[in-house]
Amino acid sequence: MAKQKKTPRPKAQTPKGFRDYFGGEVVERAAMLKAIARVYHHYGFDALDSPAVETVEALGKFLPDVERPNAGVFAWQEDEGEKPGDWLALRYDLTAPLARVYAQHKDDLPMPYRRYAMGPVWRNEKPGPGRFRQFYQCDADTVGASSVAADAEICTMLADCLETVGIARGDYVVRVNNRKVLNGVLEVMGLDDPGQRDAVLRTIDKFDKVGIEGVRELLGKGRLDASGAYIDGIGLSDEQAGPVIAFLTSKGADAAETLRNLGTAVGGSAIGAEGVDELQEIADLVRALGYGPDQIEIDPSVVRGLGYYTGPVFEAELTFDILDEKGAMRQFGSVAGGGRYDDLVKRFTGQAVPATGVSIGVDRLLAALRAKGQTGAVAPGPVVVTVMDRARMADYQSMVAELRQAGIRAEVYLGNPKNFGNQLKYADKRGSPVAIIEGADEQVRGVIQIKDLVLGAQMAAGATLEEWKERPSQFEVPRDQMLAKVREILGGMA
Amino acid sequence: MAKQKKTPRPKAQTPKGFRDYFGGEVVERAAMLKAIARVYHHYGFDALDSPAVETVEALGKFLPDVERPNAGVFAWQEDEGEKPGDWLALRYDLTAPLARVYAQHKDDLPMPYRRYAMGPVWRNEKPGPGRFRQFYQCDADTVGASSVAADAEICTMLADCLETVGIARGDYVVRVNNRKVLNGVLEVMGLDDPGQRDAVLRTIDKFDKVGIEGVRELLGKGRLDASGAYIDGIGLSDEQAGPVIAFLTSKGADAAETLRNLGTAVGGSAIGAEGVDELQEIADLVRALGYGPDQIEIDPSVVRGLGYYTGPVFEAELTFDILDEKGAMRQFGSVAGGGRYDDLVKRFTGQAVPATGVSIGVDRLLAALRAKGQTGAVAPGPVVVTVMDRARMADYQSMVAELRQAGIRAEVYLGNPKNFGNQLKYADKRGSPVAIIEGADEQVRGVIQIKDLVLGAQMAAGATLEEWKERPSQFEVPRDQMLAKVREILGGMA
Repeated sequence: MAKQKKTPRPKAQTPKGFRDYFGGEVVERAAMLKAIARVYHHYGFDALDSPAVETVEALGKFLPDVERPNAGVFAWQEDEGEKPGDWLALRYDLTAPLARVYAQHKDDLPMPYRRYAMGPVWRNEKPGPGRFRQFYQCDADTVGASSVAADAEICTMLADCLETVGIARGDYVVRVNNRKVLNGVLEVMGLDDPGQRDAVLRTIDKFDKVGIEGVRELLGKGRLDASGAYIDGIGLSDEQAGPVIAFLTSKGADAAETLRNLGTAVGGSAIGAEGVDELQEIADLVRALGYGPDQIEIDPSVVRGLGYYTGPVFEAELTFDILDEKGAMRQFGSVAGGGRYDDLVKRFTGQAVPATGVSIGVDRLLAALRAKGQTGAVAPGPVVVTVMDRARMADYQSMVAELRQAGIRAEVYLGNPKNFGNQLKYADKRGSPVAIIEGADEQVRGVIQIKDLVLGAQMAAGATLEEWKERPSQFEVPRDQMLAKVREILGGMA
Repeated sequence: MAKQKKTPRPKAQTPKGFRDYFGGEVVERAAMLKAIARVYHHYGFDALDSPAVETVEALGKFLPDVERPNAGVFAWQEDEGEKPGDWLALRYDLTAPLARVYAQHKDDLPMPYRRYAMGPVWRNEKPGPGRFRQFYQCDADTVGASSVAADAEICTMLADCLETVGIARGDYVVRVNNRKVLNGVLEVMGLDDPGQRDAVLRTIDKFDKVGIEGVRELLGKGRLDASGAYIDGIGLSDEQAGPVIAFLTSKGADAAETLRNLGTAVGGSAIGAEGVDELQEIADLVRALGYGPDQIEIDPSVVRGLGYYTGPVFEAELTFDILDEKGAMRQFGSVAGGGRYDDLVKRFTGQAVPATGVSIGVDRLLAALRAKGQTGAVAPGPVVVTVMDRARMADYQSMVAELRQAGIRAEVYLGNPKNFGNQLKYADKRGSPVAIIEGADEQVRGVIQIKDLVLGAQMAAGATLEEWKERPSQFEVPRDQMLAKVREILGGMA
C-alpha cells in the first residue's frame, strides 16, 4: 500500500541572486536616495515613478520569439484567455522606461524635460558574489536639450551628489569623454568597413583591462593573454592604429593640453572637431562654475559606454584605495556613469530626441562609504522597558509613551516576561542603549532602575575600577526623573 | 512580389493596469512613507527591505501546476537549461515575504521581532477605475509576541500614523474586533458542520454590504437581492441565528457596554470569553495611554478579515464624507487594516509563531488627504534663468548656481533659446514662480529683469489697476540684488 504523501514544507529561501536588507542598511539607503533626490530636485529635475513592469515591446531589447524572451530580463506572457497576451517584463534599468514615458506623455511634459527616478531594477543574469539580480539605481536625465550645457549640468550635479552623500573632494573625479571624438578618430583612420569599425570599438572597450600596450597589440597582430591563449588582432598597421593610440593617451597636464592633443588625434575630421569643441565647452562651463579638475576633468581614457552613447560620456570614479577580496590594494572605481543618447525616443515616435543623463549605483556608493568607515555604524536600538509584572503592562506602556513623546525611540518588551535574563539578552540583541526596570519593590518606593547598556558593555570589555565606581552601569532614580536620566545617557552617546 | 515588411514601431504605453506617477505625486508619497516610517521606527520597529521577487513556493498561495501558476500573481519559471527551474513571482503583499524572512533568518533576529516594510506590491488581477496592478503598502508587524499588548501597540501606532500624516482626530477611528469572539459565537450556535460554519463566515463577511437585516435573511431562508435575484439562505432558525445577530449588533454606548453585550453573545464559550477578555485588555491598555474612543474603539461590526485572522482584527476608517464618482456623499472608508495571524511562519518551520500587524494603504490615504484638500497643491517649480545669448551660458549657469547655493530651486533654460516666447511658456509649464532675464543691454548696465510669474498670472486673472501699479510683475534690479529680490518674491508665496 502506498504511504500517504505529506506535502513537503516550503523552503524559507530568497530566490537565487536576491537578498534581504535589514534595519540600518535600509535606513542608510533611504537616506542616501533622499540626499541625492534633494540635489536633483534643486537642479530643477522632477520626480518620476514609472511601474516596475513594462511591455517587452516598450523595453525594446528583447523580442518575443518561440522561446520565452527572458534572456537578460525577467519576462512572462499575459494570460488573456483565447488570444496570445502581451509579453511583460521587469525593467532592467530606468532609461528604457523614461523613453517610453516621454513618448507616451510628451504633450503634457515640459520641453526640455528634466526628470529623476530612483528604485530597483532587475537583471535575469547569473548571480555572483556581490552581484545581485535586483539592485537600486538613481538616475537623472534631461530629454529634449541638444546643448552640451545639459551635459555640463549633469557633471556638476553628479559632483554635488557625491559630495552631498559624504565623498570628500579629492576622493572622486567625474571624468568626461566624447563619442564624437572617437568617431573622428575612426574617420581619420579611414575605416570604412563597419565590421572593422566594430572590432576597433570592441578593442577600445578592453583598454581598462589590457592597457595601452594591449590595445596596440589587439589593433595589430594580436596578443598573448594572461591565460596563455593567443587573441587574434585586427591586423591594422602601426600607422593605421596611431590615431586610436593618440586618442586614448591624449590626456595632458590640464584640460587645454588634453584638448590640443585630441585636436591633433582627430586631424581634419569634422565630426571629431565637433566632439573636441563640445568637450571644450563642457570644460569651460564647469570651470566658470568653480568646479576644479580635482572634481571634473576631460579624460579620453574613459571608454566604458563609448559604444552605446552618441556624444559626451561621463563616469564618476572614487579614487581612494580599498582592500579587495584578495587583500590587494586597489582603487574603488566607478560608482556612476552616463552620457548623451539621442536615439532612444526615436524608436517610438520616429523623431530623434536629444537626451543626456546619469545613473548613480547607490549600492556601490554605499559600499564605498562603508569601506571608508563613514557609514555602517550600527544605529542605536530603542530604549527597552522591561516587564516585571505582566498585569502592569499599561504602566510600562506609559513609560514608553513618555519617552517617545520626548522624541526617544522606545519600546516595551513583548516576549514572554518570565525569564528576566531573556529580556536583557533581547535588549542586547536590539543594540539598546538603556533598559528600564520597575518591579513591585521599585513601584512602592516610586523609583525605577536604569541600566546603562552601553556602559555595561564597555565595563564587560574591561573598564578600570575607578571608571566603574564613578559611573555605575545600573542605578536607581525617582520615577519622575526617568526621562531626564535617559536623555543624559543618550546625550553622552552622541 | 511580397513587399518588404517594416518593423512596426513599439507602442509607447504602460501595460494594462499600470501607471506613471509624476512630480508632486511622487514627492508626496515619499514624504508620507517617510512620516509613517518615522512613527514605526520610534515604536522600536526595524526596517526590512525584502526583494520584489519570491519563489512561488515561499509565497504559498499559488502552486505550480500544468498551467502557469499566475492566477492572482505575476509568475514565471526560471530557465535553468535541462532541469525545470523554480517558479518565481512578484510579491502580492508584504506579509507573506515577512513569514519567509522570519523563517529564514530567525536565529539572527531578535525575538520578538518588530519590523516595518514599505514598497510596491503586485496583483495579477483585472484592473478597473482607480484599481491598479501595482500599488504601495506600508506595513508594521510584530512576530513572536503572543501578548495582546502587541495588538494594542499596533492600534495606538496606527492612530499616531494617521494623525502624523495629517488626518485630524475625529476624522478617523481605529476599530477593533476579535476572531475568537466570533469563534465563541459559532460554538454557542452548536454548528459542528465545517461547511455550515464556512457559510456563516461568508455571510458575516457580507454584513458591510447587506446590513443586519440582510444577514438575518441570509442566515435563514434567503434573500431577494437588489438585482432581483434570489439568494438561498443557510437555513438556520431565528433562534440559531440569534448569537450572530447579537454579536454583530453588540456595540454599546461605550466599551464597557459593548464588552458586556459581547459577553452575553458568547454565552458559556471558553474561546469566546477569552476573546472578550482580550478586547477588554486592549481597551484598557489604549485608554491607559490616553487614546479616547474617538481614536480607538471596540466595534464588533468590523468583519473584514475575520475569516483570515486568528485573534484581534483592526481597521482604520476615515469618517469624513466625500463625494463619490456618482456625486453622492459617502464616508471615505477604510485606509488600513490588520490583525493577529498565528500560523503564517508554521508553514515553513512546523512551529506556530504568534504574529500581529497592520498594513496602511498609502495610495488610498493620499487620495483621502487630496479629497480633504490637505495635499495635492502643485509645488512651485524652479526659478528659470532664461537664455538671451547662447554664448553667455556660463553667466546664466552662475546665476543658477548662486540661487541654488542659497537653497533656492533653480535651473537655466536648456531648450533652443531662439524663440523667447517658448522660454516663458516653458517656465509657465514648469510652474516657475520667477523668471530671470539678462540680455546684452542689461549686461552692459549691470542689471537683470525679474519676472514675477505668480503675480503675472494673478494679473492676467484680473487684478485691479492699483495692484498693478503697486507691484509690477516685471521689474529691473541691479545684478547683485538678484538673490535678495528672488527671496522676497518666494517669501511672499509661502
